[in-house]
Amino acid sequence: MQNTDTETQNPENLPSPVLIIGAGLLGTSVGLALGIHGVKVYLRDISPTALALAEDMQAGENANKNRQICPELVIVAAPPDVCAEIIIQALEDFPEATVTDVASVKTRILDDLQIGGADLSRYLGSHPMAGRERSGAAFARADLFAGRPWVLCPHSDSRQKSLNQLKQLAIELGALPYEMPVGEHDSAVAMVSHLPQLVSSALAARLGEAQVEALGLAGRGLRDMTRIAASDARLWAAIIGANTQPIAKLIGEFTADLEELRKALEDGEQQANAPSVIGAVTRLIQQGNQGVSRIPGKHGGAPRRYAELMVIVPDRAGTLAQLFEDVGNEKVNIEDLGLEHSPGAPYGIARLFIEPRSISPLKTALTARGWHITSG
Amino acid sequence: MQNTDTETQNPENLPSPVLIIGAGLLGTSVGLALGIHGVKVYLRDISPTALALAEDMQAGENANKNRQICPELVIVAAPPDVCAEIIIQALEDFPEATVTDVASVKTRILDDLQIGGADLSRYLGSHPMAGRERSGAAFARADLFAGRPWVLCPHSDSRQKSLNQLKQLAIELGALPYEMPVGEHDSAVAMVSHLPQLVSSALAARLGEAQVEALGLAGRGLRDMTRIAASDARLWAAIIGANTQPIAKLIGEFTADLEELRKALEDGEQQANAPSVIGAVTRLIQQGNQGVSRIPGKHGGAPRRYAELMVIVPDRAGTLAQLFEDVGNEKVNIEDLGLEHSPGAPYGIARLFIEPRSISPLKTALTARGWHITSG
Repeated sequence: MQNTDTETQNPENLPSPVLIIGAGLLGTSVGLALGIHGVKVYLRDISPTALALAEDMQAGENANKNRQICPELVIVAAPPDVCAEIIIQALEDFPEATVTDVASVKTRILDDLQIGGADLSRYLGSHPMAGRERSGAAFARADLFAGRPWVLCPHSDSRQKSLNQLKQLAIELGALPYEMPVGEHDSAVAMVSHLPQLVSSALAARLGEAQVEALGLAGRGLRDMTRIAASDARLWAAIIGANTQPIAKLIGEFTADLEELRKALEDGEQQANAPSVIGAVTRLIQQGNQGVSRIPGKHGGAPRRYAELMVIVPDRAGTLAQLFEDVGNEKVNIEDLGLEHSPGAPYGIARLFIEPRSISPLKTALTARGWHITSG
Repeated sequence: MQNTDTETQNPENLPSPVLIIGAGLLGTSVGLALGIHGVKVYLRDISPTALALAEDMQAGENANKNRQICPELVIVAAPPDVCAEIIIQALEDFPEATVTDVASVKTRILDDLQIGGADLSRYLGSHPMAGRERSGAAFARADLFAGRPWVLCPHSDSRQKSLNQLKQLAIELGALPYEMPVGEHDSAVAMVSHLPQLVSSALAARLGEAQVEALGLAGRGLRDMTRIAASDARLWAAIIGANTQPIAKLIGEFTADLEELRKALEDGEQQANAPSVIGAVTRLIQQGNQGVSRIPGKHGGAPRRYAELMVIVPDRAGTLAQLFEDVGNEKVNIEDLGLEHSPGAPYGIARLFIEPRSISPLKTALTARGWHITSG
């Protein structure tokens, strides 16, 4: 019943052998995936421990001391601040190979390479957007890239062959290749990834000073808004540090909107529901309505409006299983879902997002089976 | 298999009859719930249409023209900006009744009542935190309050009897009563509800200017951060407009943190990974780590660290049902869950949060049944 694309033996479409430099989460995952495809993989890492772990996981062969290898593709899976140096060395060591990296910031690396004066025709940076809140080979998975965007960043000197090779690599690993220049990539991730991270952290930081009683009233909104605030500080410092300009610009625009609102709130403080306050809040919320409606929905299409069914779920083993079995029996596909909890409650609310036309029959069917539907 | 507390016939614990003024989402839901408990409910609303709908739903008896009623409790379920006026009239019309309201802001209403010079011993404000992104009687449900906090705000003039009555009401309707003064309530909701709303809206507002290509890279982080940005502008303008001071203060503190970071990013722009940039980002992310760890977990306890299992779920009817049935067969309780999608992918990833000790056996069992587990 699973998607088996990643298990197809299809070596003729992929470069082989491949040298992966850096046996962390991404490097090891690429190695595992390529191994399944029958590609010969070599691994290098400055940490013998990380390398041994990746080798034990059969992500590739230890090539730290093997100078005789002749890779068709070199993948640099090292932290962004050391990538350029390793790429230059790889271009020099393997004069026939395509060289890429998988860092989540791209402009600074290309700048550093260009300053270095290397022939960059064989280099093409990429960014598989499959990072996790965990790092290290131990969390590597062959299917880490399944369904994730994999950005490819051609530049003025890069050759077509590299782009074709990397596009094929992304596709064979189940990812969705996107092409964009480095600057566009960095602006895009600043917006969809880096700014949201910093905003979540700054919001969560306010909770450090909140009263315990206030935190007891926390609902799903606050929880969703602060989930990624649990992310790793060291990793994010390196990412933000290599993409300062687009992020600083976005923070400035973001805080300007909120500061404008704050001033309106302060000016209107003496008057209940001052028209200036109502106007300022309405504007911001409406702009937010428009903005969120631009996020593409599932399958890359325009946002679809799924209908929502909320079902009371007692907090016991097997009740969710029963609910999903009952939904499945009605041949209804759950497009999205969530579980809501309240502190102290012995049950939660399952939020099922489904095709609008399925709502009415499913409601009837679930109610007949004894489920309590709280809205929809 | 459902919690049946709200269906118990238990009129002796509840005031009766009850007059509900305002047949919107909250008023109608309270009426439905009280009716199930055998309480006599009267309804009033300035809109005959809303009132007729609520009456059709059997939330209570139309009392717009009935001047002979003698309620033991009056619940004002009107928008915050008209509450005080209606409360004063109710205290005058029903000299024996306890009067409450269910508005989501409390200080301004009490201030207005005190300026009005009414005897406020029989008034005690409350806030059932069961609002939805939808409004109106049509979305009312008797179990709307199940498991939700219901804040009660005693003040210097309020009598004990009112507090007891309202606490009993909250409990019988399945809610969790919390007591706090109006000021503390308004500060608490400014932090856990109003600031997150405005931050989500301001973040989503930035998407209005983003390139379509950037939006294609949007992942779960951005989606979670902007979900509540789809909220209703009119409703939120009224809420924010009645709680300007605590919100303005919090916005100021929040934007100050981000502005400090922005300045560090601008100052460090000329140097890759400048120590000042790394320091500023690390500080903010770490403060966020600490803040988010203070949000109570399920059942009001300290946050528990559930272990996470990520399972590939093909996008077809019945696959989630199968997954949850397989999990249920192992007698494992799913503590929290989520579905992750990527644009263009024909499958998603189900994130199951479960007790750490269940992880290893469940992984083995699910793998044996053919599920692909992507990490954990």
